[in-house]
Amino acid sequence: MLRFALIGAGRIGKMHANHIASNDKCVLEVVYDLNTKASKEIANKHNCNIAKSAKEAILNKNIDVVYITSATSTHIEYILLAAKSGKSIFCEKPIDLDILKVDKCRKELKKYNVPIHIGFNRRFDLSHKSAKEAKDSGEIGNLEMIIITSRDPRPSTLSYHKYSGGIFKDMTIHDFDLACFILGNDPIIEISVYGGNLFSSTIKKINDLDTAMIIMKSKSGVLCHINNSRHAAYGYDQRLEIFGSKGMVISNNKSSSSLKKYNKNFTNANYPFYDFFIERYEQAYKDQLENFAQCLINHKPTSVNFEDGRNALIIANAAYKALSLNKSIKIKYN
Amino acid sequence: MLRFALIGAGRIGKMHANHIASNDKCVLEVVYDLNTKASKEIANKHNCNIAKSAKEAILNKNIDVVYITSATSTHIEYILLAAKSGKSIFCEKPIDLDILKVDKCRKELKKYNVPIHIGFNRRFDLSHKSAKEAKDSGEIGNLEMIIITSRDPRPSTLSYHKYSGGIFKDMTIHDFDLACFILGNDPIIEISVYGGNLFSSTIKKINDLDTAMIIMKSKSGVLCHINNSRHAAYGYDQRLEIFGSKGMVISNNKSSSSLKKYNKNFTNANYPFYDFFIERYEQAYKDQLENFAQCLINHKPTSVNFEDGRNALIIANAAYKALSLNKSIKIKYN
Amino acid sequence: MLRFALIGAGRIGKMHANHIASNDKCVLEVVYDLNTKASKEIANKHNCNIAKSAKEAILNKNIDVVYITSATSTHIEYILLAAKSGKSIFCEKPIDLDILKVDKCRKELKKYNVPIHIGFNRRFDLSHKSAKEAKDSGEIGNLEMIIITSRDPRPSTLSYHKYSGGIFKDMTIHDFDLACFILGNDPIIEISVYGGNLFSSTIKKINDLDTAMIIMKSKSGVLCHINNSRHAAYGYDQRLEIFGSKGMVISNNKSSSSLKKYNKNFTNANYPFYDFFIERYEQAYKDQLENFAQCLINHKPTSVNFEDGRNALIIANAAYKALSLNKSIKIKYN
Amino acid sequence: MLRFALIGAGRIGKMHANHIASNDKCVLEVVYDLNTKASKEIANKHNCNIAKSAKEAILNKNIDVVYITSATSTHIEYILLAAKSGKSIFCEKPIDLDILKVDKCRKELKKYNVPIHIGFNRRFDLSHKSAKEAKDSGEIGNLEMIIITSRDPRPSTLSYHKYSGGIFKDMTIHDFDLACFILGNDPIIEISVYGGNLFSSTIKKINDLDTAMIIMKSKSGVLCHINNSRHAAYGYDQRLEIFGSKGMVISNNKSSSSLKKYNKNFTNANYPFYDFFIERYEQAYKDQLENFAQCLINHKPTSVNFEDGRNALIIANAAYKALSLNKSIKIKYN
Repeated sequence: MLRFALIGAGRIGKMHANHIASNDKCVLEVVYDLNTKASKEIANKHNCNIAKSAKEAILNKNIDVVYITSATSTHIEYILLAAKSGKSIFCEKPIDLDILKVDKCRKELKKYNVPIHIGFNRRFDLSHKSAKEAKDSGEIGNLEMIIITSRDPRPSTLSYHKYSGGIFKDMTIHDFDLACFILGNDPIIEISVYGGNLFSSTIKKINDLDTAMIIMKSKSGVLCHINNSRHAAYGYDQRLEIFGSKGMVISNNKSSSSLKKYNKNFTNANYPFYDFFIERYEQAYKDQLENFAQCLINHKPTSVNFEDGRNALIIANAAYKALSLNKSIKIKYN
Repeated sequence: MLRFALIGAGRIGKMHANHIASNDKCVLEVVYDLNTKASKEIANKHNCNIAKSAKEAILNKNIDVVYITSATSTHIEYILLAAKSGKSIFCEKPIDLDILKVDKCRKELKKYNVPIHIGFNRRFDLSHKSAKEAKDSGEIGNLEMIIITSRDPRPSTLSYHKYSGGIFKDMTIHDFDLACFILGNDPIIEISVYGGNLFSSTIKKINDLDTAMIIMKSKSGVLCHINNSRHAAYGYDQRLEIFGSKGMVISNNKSSSSLKKYNKNFTNANYPFYDFFIERYEQAYKDQLENFAQCLINHKPTSVNFEDGRNALIIANAAYKALSLNKSIKIKYN
Repeated sequence: MLRFALIGAGRIGKMHANHIASNDKCVLEVVYDLNTKASKEIANKHNCNIAKSAKEAILNKNIDVVYITSATSTHIEYILLAAKSGKSIFCEKPIDLDILKVDKCRKELKKYNVPIHIGFNRRFDLSHKSAKEAKDSGEIGNLEMIIITSRDPRPSTLSYHKYSGGIFKDMTIHDFDLACFILGNDPIIEISVYGGNLFSSTIKKINDLDTAMIIMKSKSGVLCHINNSRHAAYGYDQRLEIFGSKGMVISNNKSSSSLKKYNKNFTNANYPFYDFFIERYEQAYKDQLENFAQCLINHKPTSVNFEDGRNALIIANAAYKALSLNKSIKIKYN
Repeated sequence: MLRFALIGAGRIGKMHANHIASNDKCVLEVVYDLNTKASKEIANKHNCNIAKSAKEAILNKNIDVVYITSATSTHIEYILLAAKSGKSIFCEKPIDLDILKVDKCRKELKKYNVPIHIGFNRRFDLSHKSAKEAKDSGEIGNLEMIIITSRDPRPSTLSYHKYSGGIFKDMTIHDFDLACFILGNDPIIEISVYGGNLFSSTIKKINDLDTAMIIMKSKSGVLCHINNSRHAAYGYDQRLEIFGSKGMVISNNKSSSSLKKYNKNFTNANYPFYDFFIERYEQAYKDQLENFAQCLINHKPTSVNFEDGRNALIIANAAYKALSLNKSIKIKYN
């Protein structure tokens, strides 16, 4: 059994706590959050301890794993604390919004040989994962194009958007990682971007975009397109299309019901898609935890590592540069 | 080139005239209809002659084929006239509503060795046909079940229903033939029926049904289900499902547009299906004519023959018997 | 919190134990199974007590609910024991295979005013349930036809089939109940049946069917069709179509992945459906428990009661009679 | 009746001749082609005259319309000849590969007040057209994104590619026009491009691309993506997605058969899509002719005019510039 310290008891923290509780390889030992009420709630439900500080939770001798779901700005501090005390680490994305801090952390981390997993959960979605398998097995021949459609159902709160790092670091970063996941050893080396403020004056005021279109090129020449919107009337839109010399696979949207309606106005109408990521990626979150636990137990490298988290951030930075210079930007990773 | 006499210039006759004109193996030589205006219209459009009587058209020495699309009650007379004069025959379904007349015609026809094709056009629908091919190729293993959904968009006129022979001889007869087509050499030997008057008081008044459900069994044990309705709010509903030991194929509905709509109420919504048989089975009508022409030119037996037309009528008669006796009825074909 | 005694720790018992554990209104207090190893496993995982007998578990003063998932032949005994001790009851379907025993139990039960829920879980499937809602809301107009396709992926073990009560009491009983659920206050009053032994010599030897087709009529005239097979190469096939004067809804199949494949042979190809009922109806099982718990807590009648269980058995008996007499059978419920 | 001179009797010319023949507002009067055999074939089939030169055909006093389907390099000469003699003009796309020639022709044309239609047939595809209608009716709210997927089933001959003007002037030009069609009065003002030579060494040798990805921005800020490939294993891939504040519509692919297959490997598998444009856009070609004829008869402006043809070419030129400079290019139309 792996024993977990959960740092962060917000909405996402609660979700992770439930997934830990229902996984037969994991036990929640201790929880910490600045918000005492939130940590108490989790402690009561899952019968675990409450730490008085993040440090206390992380240094707890009974735990094997530090599960970091606190505010982004605290990630690096907790990662390093956990690493120094020899704990395995699960950290929600992004590592940090500042590549300089990430690079410093990266250098530091090399001193400690601890497993670290960055929470790019979409890699574990059964449909996206089988798309990757179709590519790796040769089923679609040589990969030639990747098209990612990724639209939130609606904007979040203003305070969220103010500190999220902007659309590319907060939202598109998942799509950058998904593209990297499909590409495998073939890095993205070039990016062009168009952005838009098409519907949200709130997002415009804080100098962020509500809509974006991106094209990218990999080292081997694969072309990638990503389109993002901060709203979608019909629910959370998450599609991945990969096209190759022998065929194509599309990881399509999902909804809770398989009902189809037929009347004088339309036929085959399905229900709106899952509302948002917690429902849409529930299976992915669970399987990510299971995969992480298996890697630890079997002493195998984690499936999504620090480099993956850093690479996605580097691409996000290049996206901002491409946007401001209005031209194609080359991407370097060292 | 095959030269055609068209007997019947109503709505279906006009459609056939257009298909003859656009087929490169066929020419329309002469047309006849009681309604002089209707035959003139066709003659003008397709630059063909007008006969003063059906007999004159059928005996015309320039023609190879008599194409019978006149009222059902005239079919047998014209079939025999054409047969006696050595012409090839295409006759719309049904041959006649009365099995005794059909049997008499059958006996008579044996004296003349002329090709005859009965117009069960659905056998030539590309989707239904590929269902049949999937069965014949062994792709679905041993055939075990057939499920046919067949619903008209709306009832026809009262005068139509009065003389149509009732739902089983007019509408379900297509479905009986489709089941026979899929089954091939394995005849339907038993039938049970439930009928309903669920929405049309007009149809009820003339002692016909507006809704029906049927189960049938073939000699080898294949089970078949047919459901019929005289209305469907979402358009003409024509589905064929065949299920076997290795899999299933479904010949699904079709619509003119491939547009899909997504909004806050639904996703993936398609347009209503084709309104009715002329649009839905346009390709089938054209391919039926092409197939008939090819059989004549290559001196091969017609694909849908007099026996097929008679068998479907025998099953329709059994359906009425099963309905009135409220029990399972054995079917015999001799 | 509702405290549960679980009677039966087999495969289905384990599944129910997990669902009880993850429901925030329920606690598993005690478990009993003839097989001591099985009950120990559940007790260890969920930290509950083990009873030495079913009686001990049922009479346990700490419990509110008896959850019966033991062998069918024991259901009535445990139902009555629980009723006498004033416990609420959840009993897996069927109540019993013998209508005489069920009727005796029914009479007895009337003495005790305890809530009882019969486990027809499919009523709680989100898609089937929204089909029912579409009917109740008037969205499809007057209900005219119900078509249920229900095919297992493969036969079970011989020993299972020997004691299951046969296809109508074991498998079709779910479909009978689903039809009753959709029909609401409009009882099924007539049934015709064709059966087949199309692929399994094992099932034939024990005088059971591997394939069946049924048509039924409700009091108001709604026509229903059910088709069953004990195998389906492409996975567990569970479809419900309801057709009315204003439209149609179809509760369609589900699979774990939304991947679609395109190559030179085919397009839009999805993954096989969920393998079987535990995966396919996981959400339904969970929501059934939640609904049951809510009814108890709010002192509302259970959603699926003893009468529902009895009605489905009466229809199954009529199906056997229709099969053996090869005619339409009237159904009475008193 | 409109009387047509057809200039060009190649594969596309033959197709147009058939569509003219089956349209009840049109008659084919005369045909001309350098290849005498080709024009004879059409003349025989459709019973029309053969001209000895394009000039003779165009100046023919019996004709109303000059239908230009000859080699691209001859388009402008025939357009001007037809304009001078006061004939209405239908010209296949592109007008010419050279914008200077097009501008000269444009200036010249202004002297003659003749109707001219440029053959961007996709605007008349029922599905694409209903996407446009969904946008114009406000059904999807404010337009925010357009995504066009356009992939040929396979490259054409080397000689075709050598003189086609390259991927942007030959293939993408249809997609540029489709984007303009959806956008209406909102011109595309900026473009970025990535190209690839991912599979065809033949195409690479002649300095053309086999794969391309494009992002564009309209004056109002709408973002557009186009992806192109010169091959697609699963058939001709033609999709149009438009996304707005209230929803989305997708004009999806089409195939000749609606058959769906289910087996142990997959479910819902459809047939490959229509092989190529002649089958896929048959309805669009017919409706384009009908629309053109109606505009002439009712003295209304043509639906796709010279400016539309010129605009698409200007965007194609900008695409080449964006590719060579590897940056975002502003587009001007005067």
